[in-house]
Amino acid sequence: MDIWRKQFNLAEWNNLIEASLADADSEPLFNLAGEEAIYDAVFVGGGAGGRFGAAYLKAMGGRPLIIDAWPFLGGSCPHQACVPHHLFSDAAAELDLMRWFSDELFFPKFDASRASILQMVKLFVAGRSTAHAFMNWQTKEQLEVEYVLNARATIVDRHTVRAGGRTFHGRNLVLGMGARPVYPDIPGLQLRGIYDFVSLVEELDYEPTRCVIIGGSKVAMEYGAFFHATGCDTTIVTRSPLMRARSLHHVDEDLRRYVVEGMRKRGMVIYEGAVPLSVNGKDSAGSVTVRLANGDVVDLETDFVFIATGERPNSAEAQEVLGVAVGPTGRVIVDKTMQTTVPNVYAIGDMIDGPMEMFKARKCGVTAARNIMGDHIEFDFTEYPDFLHTTYEVTWVGLTEAEARAEYEEVVIIQMPPYVEGLDTENLPLPCSDRSMLYAFSKPELSGFQKLVVDGTSRRVLGAHHVGYGAKDAFQYLDYLIHRPEGLTIDELGWMNELFLNPEHFIQLSRLRAGRRKLVDL
Amino acid sequence: MDIWRKQFNLAEWNNLIEASLADADSEPLFNLAGEEAIYDAVFVGGGAGGRFGAAYLKAMGGRPLIIDAWPFLGGSCPHQACVPHHLFSDAAAELDLMRWFSDELFFPKFDASRASILQMVKLFVAGRSTAHAFMNWQTKEQLEVEYVLNARATIVDRHTVRAGGRTFHGRNLVLGMGARPVYPDIPGLQLRGIYDFVSLVEELDYEPTRCVIIGGSKVAMEYGAFFHATGCDTTIVTRSPLMRARSLHHVDEDLRRYVVEGMRKRGMVIYEGAVPLSVNGKDSAGSVTVRLANGDVVDLETDFVFIATGERPNSAEAQEVLGVAVGPTGRVIVDKTMQTTVPNVYAIGDMIDGPMEMFKARKCGVTAARNIMGDHIEFDFTEYPDFLHTTYEVTWVGLTEAEARAEYEEVVIIQMPPYVEGLDTENLPLPCSDRSMLYAFSKPELSGFQKLVVDGTSRRVLGAHHVGYGAKDAFQYLDYLIHRPEGLTIDELGWMNELFLNPEHFIQLSRLRAGRRKLVDL
Repeated sequence: MDIWRKQFNLAEWNNLIEASLADADSEPLFNLAGEEAIYDAVFVGGGAGGRFGAAYLKAMGGRPLIIDAWPFLGGSCPHQACVPHHLFSDAAAELDLMRWFSDELFFPKFDASRASILQMVKLFVAGRSTAHAFMNWQTKEQLEVEYVLNARATIVDRHTVRAGGRTFHGRNLVLGMGARPVYPDIPGLQLRGIYDFVSLVEELDYEPTRCVIIGGSKVAMEYGAFFHATGCDTTIVTRSPLMRARSLHHVDEDLRRYVVEGMRKRGMVIYEGAVPLSVNGKDSAGSVTVRLANGDVVDLETDFVFIATGERPNSAEAQEVLGVAVGPTGRVIVDKTMQTTVPNVYAIGDMIDGPMEMFKARKCGVTAARNIMGDHIEFDFTEYPDFLHTTYEVTWVGLTEAEARAEYEEVVIIQMPPYVEGLDTENLPLPCSDRSMLYAFSKPELSGFQKLVVDGTSRRVLGAHHVGYGAKDAFQYLDYLIHRPEGLTIDELGWMNELFLNPEHFIQLSRLRAGRRKLVDL
Repeated sequence: MDIWRKQFNLAEWNNLIEASLADADSEPLFNLAGEEAIYDAVFVGGGAGGRFGAAYLKAMGGRPLIIDAWPFLGGSCPHQACVPHHLFSDAAAELDLMRWFSDELFFPKFDASRASILQMVKLFVAGRSTAHAFMNWQTKEQLEVEYVLNARATIVDRHTVRAGGRTFHGRNLVLGMGARPVYPDIPGLQLRGIYDFVSLVEELDYEPTRCVIIGGSKVAMEYGAFFHATGCDTTIVTRSPLMRARSLHHVDEDLRRYVVEGMRKRGMVIYEGAVPLSVNGKDSAGSVTVRLANGDVVDLETDFVFIATGERPNSAEAQEVLGVAVGPTGRVIVDKTMQTTVPNVYAIGDMIDGPMEMFKARKCGVTAARNIMGDHIEFDFTEYPDFLHTTYEVTWVGLTEAEARAEYEEVVIIQMPPYVEGLDTENLPLPCSDRSMLYAFSKPELSGFQKLVVDGTSRRVLGAHHVGYGAKDAFQYLDYLIHRPEGLTIDELGWMNELFLNPEHFIQLSRLRAGRRKLVDL
């Protein structure tokens, strides 16, 4: 269908997307200006990186084309990944609150029979196309980008892609084909009742009662905390200790302890240093055999196995057809301009090394676009802020206390609750702010944790760490501030205008120390 | 009681504070190093400004003394003002969620009989001393500041203060005696059933069922939204339209509309341009007579009148004894170093002009301290970020769209939902992020509103505005960034590392526009 001259509103887009998803034979959607053209770049994949890259290239005056197999732009994030994760994590935070406060204050006795994984999955699937509709609309009408949707791209050569029965030519290709969950090599994974974050939203058709998660990734922690909060008893089986995998940088040990102990406090079982040996069952998974850290081999009963052992880029086609060099884990090798080993071919987002996070995907796309348009720019994502959910929002940026102590002579720590030998801080309702006030006044030990790491010599903030609610947004700006060339001193931080009560108390706590020539802990 | 050599833990502090509050004849608490001394500054009042000022002065090597009538430091904020307000606003947000989702998803049918203003007041009062205990402990043990608590100060002259039967001498006085709610001049305010934010937490002893709020301040909106969320039908009677009083700067009209319509959508009755004439009743308030904007005079039945017409500084003693000049509304006149018209006498916080907000109080205290210690510094609080709660967190900083259009030639607006003539955005689940995901997927029109105001010529961000959850923390840093000399361009903002989903979508939306030489709306 040619849609270039059509102006769908959001409801019409929604219907078109839903109809296309429901019908395997639905036709491609061509949003093309019409003339035969050589595009400045053909973006293979219209996910986060492709969409932002194409939009930027267009904004700079170039001519991009996006091709995507799905009938919508935005990729896996709004369809299977970040958006459902956030919905589920919000449900987890809310269920957690309702459980702790069962029959207290204005909360009724918690009714676990109402909480359901399946119901939340259905809520997500029923609503997900509204975000898709918006992105299709925005990309067409506001960003004025040409695209072909609902058509799987076939890469012909480094200037040519076929899709929807037509052939498209570009001076450059930008590969943004994403990644897919990878499974461990153990027997039994063909059984029913085994899911990953993709198949969870696409295929779940029963209510799990007992979950075994294989893997210790962010996804393991985030989805596990949600499953458990619904009342599905959840066990995590992970080789590496949670939050200690190399893929997560800068995890402070005190923050890690607060987070993992918090999961255990809520009844989750976490086996670290454990190796899954097999999933067992006749048709459906009934148990998982695991070798624990102490060598014991145990059978964990379950009716729901969730695989969270990471993802692998969809890089095989690019490797075979174009000959781009690929690393040992399938990641396409690129330089800091996102160019692959093949001239005029770029790769972005989850296709390449580094964190599989939104900021990286989008900024990779922009980096490729700017370089294609002649604006030489390099994107270095070795430092970035990070976060994950349990029933909390956990955010961090910069150095951990241990990393700072290894690198700097005088490290000053400002934390809440403070660590003071012998002080009875267990009922201290600090830190607290929006969405942790009920905890602060009823279950103060649940209200959160935070730490600021400062170089006592230069007075610069080296790292910030937070568990609680409402600080995620700020960590984007803290990342910018502490990583700018001049850094962020405790003096500048302490002179900012806080909005009290603020989720992380860094500004006011810094102010209580900034008067001192020689900084000390707080 | 002399406590200098005692080391109380938090539980002991808590008990001591509670016992002192319960007994009108309890003795003063002297935390004094011992020697007769002339202090560099005597802080009269140990609230936010006094405590931070004293801590800063001490940190700089000076010798401060704090005197407070209460047996704890921190002042009205943790005892009667910001902290209860945040607890109540959290309850309001939670009750609002439970009402909208009554008998949907994992939420049971909402049971209004469980929700209670009185219960939340009691919860607050039972727990408030734990924060007091911490501040007493921190100020003594970590900040090493001398203080006299549970002893009302009597100002003798500009170097002398008496408290607890002893006389203290200072080279300087810093007045931080706070403010108290001011009542309008109408008949009937001596009746029972009439409260302000102070007497609410100190005296409420029944469950109100119907509330009339007199006044349109932040307090009116914040407490009103809470009362109404508990099921106490609430009517606001205000002369100025909500959020249009001169005391609130930079309120964008679209933000205001979203906020006020949101309150009405939840069933609150708001009479703007209305004048309260009298409160009527025999012993207790039974109705409020109001002249509406159209001239009609109506009787509003009620069993709970809440006065929210602002506060007035406790400046009479300083004016009478010291002769400091005071403005027409009782605000002590100071210069930008916080010095009053009397040498060596400073006034800070709610005693002086400007917003009665935490950042101002604390930084006033620090400003006085630094100037006393010879470090000339001026504190200009004409620009600052601001916020209030309804059942939402509402935050803003910098120019409104209208202010920007009056001042700049090319104003570019980036907002969500976008304003596009004829586009059906009413069910658009954007913006959304943590704590608004359930709304986004079930009641998308409730998920929030946001706007970024940009100067198209310099590409600088002029203002940012947000209604939703989780953005408050970030606005502290946005304030710093947009008000630094070089400002914050849309290009810098668009190149930051977002943590997706982030509560305000400013970074990624800026990125979608930053590629253009000539910026346009989004």
